[in-house]
Amino acid sequence: MVMILQRAASLRAVLQCLRPHCTFSRAATLRLSTVSPCREVLPGTSWHPGLTPRKLHTGADGSKVSSAGVPARLPFSTVTEEDVAFFRKTLPGRTITDPDLLESCNVDWLKSARGSSEVLLRPQTTEEVSQILRYCNDRNLAVNTQGGNTGLVGGSVPVYDEIVLSTALMNKIHTFNSTSGILTCQAGCILEELSGFLEERDHMMPLDLGAKGSCHIGGNVATNAGGLRLLRYGSLHGTVLGLEVVLADGRVLDCLSTLRKDNTGYDLKQLFIGSEGTLGVVTAVSILCPRRPSSVNVVFLGCETFEQLLKTFGLSRGMLGEIMSAYEFLDSECMRLLNAHLKLPNPISDCPFYIVIETSGSDAAHDGEKLHNFLDAAMTSSLVTDGTVATEESKIKALWSMRERITEALTHDGYTYKYDVSLPVEQLYQLVTDMREHLAGRAKSVVGYGHVGDGNLHLNITSPAKDPSLLAAIEPFVYEWTAKCSGSISAEHGLGLRKRNYIYYSKARPAVALMGDIKAMLDPKGILNPYKTLPDNLRG
Amino acid sequence: MVMILQRAASLRAVLQCLRPHCTFSRAATLRLSTVSPCREVLPGTSWHPGLTPRKLHTGADGSKVSSAGVPARLPFSTVTEEDVAFFRKTLPGRTITDPDLLESCNVDWLKSARGSSEVLLRPQTTEEVSQILRYCNDRNLAVNTQGGNTGLVGGSVPVYDEIVLSTALMNKIHTFNSTSGILTCQAGCILEELSGFLEERDHMMPLDLGAKGSCHIGGNVATNAGGLRLLRYGSLHGTVLGLEVVLADGRVLDCLSTLRKDNTGYDLKQLFIGSEGTLGVVTAVSILCPRRPSSVNVVFLGCETFEQLLKTFGLSRGMLGEIMSAYEFLDSECMRLLNAHLKLPNPISDCPFYIVIETSGSDAAHDGEKLHNFLDAAMTSSLVTDGTVATEESKIKALWSMRERITEALTHDGYTYKYDVSLPVEQLYQLVTDMREHLAGRAKSVVGYGHVGDGNLHLNITSPAKDPSLLAAIEPFVYEWTAKCSGSISAEHGLGLRKRNYIYYSKARPAVALMGDIKAMLDPKGILNPYKTLPDNLRG
Repeated sequence: MVMILQRAASLRAVLQCLRPHCTFSRAATLRLSTVSPCREVLPGTSWHPGLTPRKLHTGADGSKVSSAGVPARLPFSTVTEEDVAFFRKTLPGRTITDPDLLESCNVDWLKSARGSSEVLLRPQTTEEVSQILRYCNDRNLAVNTQGGNTGLVGGSVPVYDEIVLSTALMNKIHTFNSTSGILTCQAGCILEELSGFLEERDHMMPLDLGAKGSCHIGGNVATNAGGLRLLRYGSLHGTVLGLEVVLADGRVLDCLSTLRKDNTGYDLKQLFIGSEGTLGVVTAVSILCPRRPSSVNVVFLGCETFEQLLKTFGLSRGMLGEIMSAYEFLDSECMRLLNAHLKLPNPISDCPFYIVIETSGSDAAHDGEKLHNFLDAAMTSSLVTDGTVATEESKIKALWSMRERITEALTHDGYTYKYDVSLPVEQLYQLVTDMREHLAGRAKSVVGYGHVGDGNLHLNITSPAKDPSLLAAIEPFVYEWTAKCSGSISAEHGLGLRKRNYIYYSKARPAVALMGDIKAMLDPKGILNPYKTLPDNLRG
Repeated sequence: MVMILQRAASLRAVLQCLRPHCTFSRAATLRLSTVSPCREVLPGTSWHPGLTPRKLHTGADGSKVSSAGVPARLPFSTVTEEDVAFFRKTLPGRTITDPDLLESCNVDWLKSARGSSEVLLRPQTTEEVSQILRYCNDRNLAVNTQGGNTGLVGGSVPVYDEIVLSTALMNKIHTFNSTSGILTCQAGCILEELSGFLEERDHMMPLDLGAKGSCHIGGNVATNAGGLRLLRYGSLHGTVLGLEVVLADGRVLDCLSTLRKDNTGYDLKQLFIGSEGTLGVVTAVSILCPRRPSSVNVVFLGCETFEQLLKTFGLSRGMLGEIMSAYEFLDSECMRLLNAHLKLPNPISDCPFYIVIETSGSDAAHDGEKLHNFLDAAMTSSLVTDGTVATEESKIKALWSMRERITEALTHDGYTYKYDVSLPVEQLYQLVTDMREHLAGRAKSVVGYGHVGDGNLHLNITSPAKDPSLLAAIEPFVYEWTAKCSGSISAEHGLGLRKRNYIYYSKARPAVALMGDIKAMLDPKGILNPYKTLPDNLRG
C-alpha cells in the first residue's frame, strides 16, 4: 500500500505536466470541437435564427456517407406543396425546407448514413406533435424523429425522404421535486443542461454519456442509452418513472407519472424505452435523479491477466460496495495507441490490462478509507501489480481520459471497425483474443476496452484503409461468436439502420415476430422511423 | 446527540424486556403461523405427497369470502373428462382433481375471493406449460396461473372454474454467477429460499416482502412486487434482466437474457412485469442480485409534524446517501394500536409521527459515523424530537416490528378497510388527515403508515364490524382524492379482481384502451387469468 500511494504521489506530478491544451473532459472523446460541421458544410449561408448549431462528435471512424445495405424505399407518399402549407400553418416559422439548413439533420454523426429529407419540423408542444403525426398518418407520410442526432447505428437520420421531426425546441423543464428527486421535462432537453440544472439543486442525472452536450433526454429514452453510470444507478427501464408519447396516429399517451410505485395495469411506458422512435414519439419524460455525491475518487490499476481483473472486480464489489460507481477496463493495445497517437503517458508501469474504478459517496474520509483498504487487499493478494489514485477533479479527469480518449486514439490509427457487445463477464476478453488469432495479422490493431461492470465490451479493429476483405473476416465471425455466448450484438448502441438485420443473433425468432406484431399494432402504416430496428424480413 | 444515545442505551434495556414469544421477524405481520390453514380446512385428509403445505399469511382484515363485484362468467369451455385425461397424460401424478386438495388454491389469502376450479395442474417444465396452454387455448379453457397465492387483490385465485396452473414444482435454480451477481431460476422458486441460497454466496435478492416465505419469484415478477428494498435497489423493471414466458397459445418466448445491457429490439420482457398473469405465464427469471451488506442499522425517530418528517427525509438522503436502504413512517394512531393490541411499548417518547430508517453498508464503522452525524444534525435542527438506534440483529428486528406489526394490530382493532396508494410525498399524509375529517368520527380508527421513500401510503380504516355505509363514505372518496393528486390507487398490490374497475382513477382512457389492444394481441381468446387487471368495459 505504501508503494501504491507513493506511486500515486509521483503520478500527480506526471499528470500536472500533461499538456494544458489536452481536453480532459469525460466527453472529450466524443466532443473535441464545438464547431458545427453544418457551418463547414454550408459556408456563406446565413444561420437560421431558430436553429442552434448542434455540438457534434468528431473523431469517429471516418467512414464515408454511404447507403450500403439500405432497403428499398417503401411506398410512402411524398411531401407535396399542400403538405408543406399545412405544416407552415401548424408550425409557423418552424417548418424548414431550405436544403442547406436540412443538411445537418440528413447526416448522422459517423457520417455513414445520409437521408434526403426535404422538410424539417420543429414543434414546441405535444399538441403540435400530435397534429403533425395525425396528418402524416392520414397522408401516409413517413416521419423520422430526431433528438441530438448522436446515435451510432444510423437510427437518427432519414433513410430516404422521411420528414424530420426534431425535438430541439421541446426543451422546457416542467418540475423538479427536491424531496423525491423526480424531474419532469420535455423530450428535447439536452442531457448536459439537465445535469447543470440538477447540479445547482444538489442532484444529478442517473445517466451520463459522452454525447451529453448534444443528446436529448427523449432520444436517450428512445434508445435506452446506457453510459457511465449504469453500473450504479441501473438502466432507464428502472429510473424513468413516466413518459408522454404521441402515437403514430396522433393519439397522446399520457403515462407521465411521477410516482416510484404504480401497479395499475400494464407498464406501457416500457414499450417505448429502447424502441428507437419506431413505436411513438416521446414528448416528455419523468425520471428519478440521485443526490450528487460529495466525494468522488478514481483509481487506475494494472493487472497481469483478465482473470485477475475479474477477481479484482469481485473484491471491489465486496470492499467498495455501495460507493463503486464505475469499473472500466482497457488492454495494453489501447495503452499503446494512447501513447503513440495522443502522447498520453501511462500513469503506471506497463501491464497487459488496466482498470479504471470510480467511487462516488457522501463522505470523503470514509470513501478514502474504503479505497485504501481495497487497494491494500488487491495489492497484498497480488491481484493488481501497480496503481494510482486521484481525488482532485483535474486528476480524476486525467485518469478518466485514459479510458475515454481511446476512441480518439483509434481514429488516428486508421479506419476503424467498431463493435459494441454484451457478454458474460468471464468471456468478455476472450472475444478480443480469438479475434486477434482469427485475423492472424490482417488488421493493424485489435483492441478491447469497455464497461466490465456491465459486461459490455467495445471491440475495435483498425486497418490502414477501408478493407472489404478484412470486414468479411470480421463479420459475421464477431456476431456468431457473440451469439454462441448468448451475448448481445448491441449492448447500448441499438440496432438502428445499420444492425437491424443482425437482430437474430441476439433474439429468438418468436421474440422478433412479436416485436413485429407490436409495431403493427402501434404503427399500422409503419410511418415512424421506417427501415430501422426491425429486420427487413418482417416488413411487407 | 448525547441525549439520543442515552435514550438509545435505555431503549436497549426496554427492548430486552419485550416478551420472548413476540415474533420479531420482518415478516411477522404477515406470517405469524407456519401451520397451514389447508390442514385445518381438511382435517383427516391425507396430504398429497407432491403438495407442500403453503405457509399462509394470517392476521388480515378478516373479511369473509365473497364474490361481490364479480363479473358474469365469460363463455369459456368447461373441463371435460377428455380434458382431464389429456392433462393426466401430460402431467402424470401432477393433475389434481380432488376437491379437498383444490380448496386452498381456490381461496385467496385475505379469504375475500373464492373460485371453484376443479383442476389443479402442477407442471415442472416450460415444455409442459407450453403443452398445457396450447391445449387450453385450442379448447377455449380459461387458466389461472398461481404462484404462492399471496396476492392482496384477488388476482391469484380463479373467479369461476378456471384451471389452476401452479408454478410450485418449477422451483429449480439454474445458475448463479458470483462475479456479476446474476441469478437464473424457474418461476416457482420461493423468494425466501432464493434469499437463503444467495446469503450463502454473500449476495441477496433485490426485493424483500412480508410474504417471502410463500411467494414465488414468478409471481413477484408477474405482479411487479415492491416491498422493502425498492428505495435502494429499484423496481423489478430494472433488476429483472430476462424472462422466459409461455404465451396463451403455447409459444415459448425466450427473453431469458443474463446481460445487464441488451439493446437489440424492443424489451419484450417488460410487458410481462406487472401484467398479473394476464399476458403470459412467466416460467423462468434472471435477476441482478446485489452483494449482501455487512453492516445494517435501524433508527427509530419521533417528529412533531409531517413536514419535519419530510425534511428529515431530505437530510437523510444527503447525509446517509448511499447507505440508506429504507425510510418508513407510522403515525401516532398506529402507535396507539401497537400499544393497545400487541402491548408493544413505544421505544421513544410520544410523538405525532415516527420514522424507521434502515442503513445497509459495507463498513460498520463508517455507517455508524454517518448515522451519528445525521442524527446529530437532525436533533440540532430540531427536526426530530427523540430517537433510538439499533445495531444488533435482535434489536433491529424489534424496531422493525413497530412498523411491520401494524397490520396485525389493525386486525385486533376491528374490520379493516385497506388502501395502498402512491402520492407525491408532500401530500402523502394529507389524505389521512382529510379522510379523518371526512369520516367525522364514523370510523373506529383512521391510521397512516408506509414507505415515505417510495411515496407509498398505507391508509387503513377500522370499524367494529363490516359497515357498508362507512365503505360508501370511504369510496370513491379515497380514489378521487388520489386521482386529484395524480397518485396511483394501487402502488404495489396491483389491480387483480378487486380493483380492476378503478383503473381509470390512475390511468387515462387511451392508455387503458392500449392495454386492451395488447391483451387482445397476446391472448386473443382471453384465456389467461380472466376477469383480472383490465376493467370489465374493455371486454366483449
